[in-house]
Amino acid sequence: MPTFGDIGERKMVDMIRSVVARAGCPDGLDDDAAVIDAPAGGLVACTDALTFERHMPDGMSYEQFGWMCAAANVSDLASMGARPIGLLASMNVPVSMDVSDVCDIASGIDQCAEFAGTYVIGGDTKPGNGTVAVTALGSMEGRRPMNRSGARPGDVIAVTGPLGGPAAGFEAIRHGIDLPDSVAALFEPIPRVEEGIRLAETGLVTSCMDLSDGLSTCINTLCRASGTGAVIQWEFIPADEGVKIISEKTGIPEKDMLMDWGGEYELLFTFSSDDHEAIAATGVDFHIIGMMTDKDVLLRREEKYEVISDGRY
Amino acid sequence: MPTFGDIGERKMVDMIRSVVARAGCPDGLDDDAAVIDAPAGGLVACTDALTFERHMPDGMSYEQFGWMCAAANVSDLASMGARPIGLLASMNVPVSMDVSDVCDIASGIDQCAEFAGTYVIGGDTKPGNGTVAVTALGSMEGRRPMNRSGARPGDVIAVTGPLGGPAAGFEAIRHGIDLPDSVAALFEPIPRVEEGIRLAETGLVTSCMDLSDGLSTCINTLCRASGTGAVIQWEFIPADEGVKIISEKTGIPEKDMLMDWGGEYELLFTFSSDDHEAIAATGVDFHIIGMMTDKDVLLRREEKYEVISDGRY
Repeated sequence: MPTFGDIGERKMVDMIRSVVARAGCPDGLDDDAAVIDAPAGGLVACTDALTFERHMPDGMSYEQFGWMCAAANVSDLASMGARPIGLLASMNVPVSMDVSDVCDIASGIDQCAEFAGTYVIGGDTKPGNGTVAVTALGSMEGRRPMNRSGARPGDVIAVTGPLGGPAAGFEAIRHGIDLPDSVAALFEPIPRVEEGIRLAETGLVTSCMDLSDGLSTCINTLCRASGTGAVIQWEFIPADEGVKIISEKTGIPEKDMLMDWGGEYELLFTFSSDDHEAIAATGVDFHIIGMMTDKDVLLRREEKYEVISDGRY
Repeated sequence: MPTFGDIGERKMVDMIRSVVARAGCPDGLDDDAAVIDAPAGGLVACTDALTFERHMPDGMSYEQFGWMCAAANVSDLASMGARPIGLLASMNVPVSMDVSDVCDIASGIDQCAEFAGTYVIGGDTKPGNGTVAVTALGSMEGRRPMNRSGARPGDVIAVTGPLGGPAAGFEAIRHGIDLPDSVAALFEPIPRVEEGIRLAETGLVTSCMDLSDGLSTCINTLCRASGTGAVIQWEFIPADEGVKIISEKTGIPEKDMLMDWGGEYELLFTFSSDDHEAIAATGVDFHIIGMMTDKDVLLRREEKYEVISDGRY
């Protein structure tokens, strides 16, 4: 099996190009820079780099790692309400890696691009220690970007889906417990692209971010940015069904998996309770988990309050 | 002196934000994704990652390394004729690094952004092995992008400035020879932003790329992309003044430094000889070094021809 080092950079890049070139892909892959149509009404850009060492748990394939690298960025676009218009991938991988493994990373990135309705429009491949930086570009299409700083006391706090799946999946693998759905949440997270676009279309969301740093850290981040506090109601937090199973079998507290882990790709967002009907009319699945307040970030559980500190992310 | 690991990711990011936030910088640094005004007439994007291990020669400061990371990308925009509209920086650096060194990288990136008339609009900082991936965004402002594939037999080949400076600078340091201008060409390369814009404005450039891979590799790349050959006239290649000095003192052939090294940020471009006057009227300094042909990539030197193979990059 030839390695990256065996075939050299130019041939590796040619192979990656052939992996990611799909019908309709803008023709930028032959130059150092890609040219695409300028978006209408606001250009959104974000970048996030993952490393083999920190972000590739046991059992994850290179294809899944590639998907993750893209999903982390597509999710950041989703949290603003942007439609993805292009991904760039900068891959620094060991020369000892099999060519097919390098191509698998590129393929995973491309699959996530396809899921998000866009393309890999450019990139860079060089020897390195296993760092893949993806940049995602998006278009607001005239929508107002959802940011982190607009939440007001009294706004309701919602999330787009069940939490704790990635944590439960991680512990399932570690303890040899069969929980394929939770493992999929860990290895193939779904960025909430359409949900973000529909929420932004309402113009009524006062703040939004993805939960990639976990609920505990993210609600603190949102409160810092908005100058508010929050109360999360424990019983309202929707849980991946693996969370209870893992907790019962291993003793790991549910709260640890639901709040203090990261790697979630659901959206956390706030809106005025007056706008509940309009938000519901988007058809986006969501669960109200609490309310913004004047100060302090608290969890309400069995009628007692405890402070929510930043989680491990 | 505190390290990245001592202060943690959030505080490190806050410090980097304060380093790169200049007056007029779009307000995207508080969210995971930055929002900027959509460009007019074509969005250009490119990404390139550099590593401490491969791209930080002895004697280079972290600030200079940051500049390099940005310059490599700004230069790719310049080769298309795009005006830079934002940089994103993804930094994966060891937790053992001094906070001030991490900030120096960010400052170097920001200084290059300022030189290029733009801003750092977003980024990501995480523990890693010393990989900095920068993404540069640019606007064509209605100009037609200059690409690599449009050169025709008979076109003249030109470069924007003297070559061999980075190679001479590298050898000067290695051999203890005092050549500050060549060392500056190595450590603080100037991307040809305004030159690229002015050349693209003419609409007469048939192909263009930067010389970051060195003249030998780049002329081969250009010929492959355009389906042509080329003849470069040895005596016409403009040389950094350190090249001759290093060659005389060390015996390293001038050709090695002028053609086979990389890290040049001059532009290589082609145009019809009929358009010489219009290209000269741009005010861009350039040197004609040869002519595109039907086939074969050749160097003409003392009336003999030799094949130009890809250089070391």
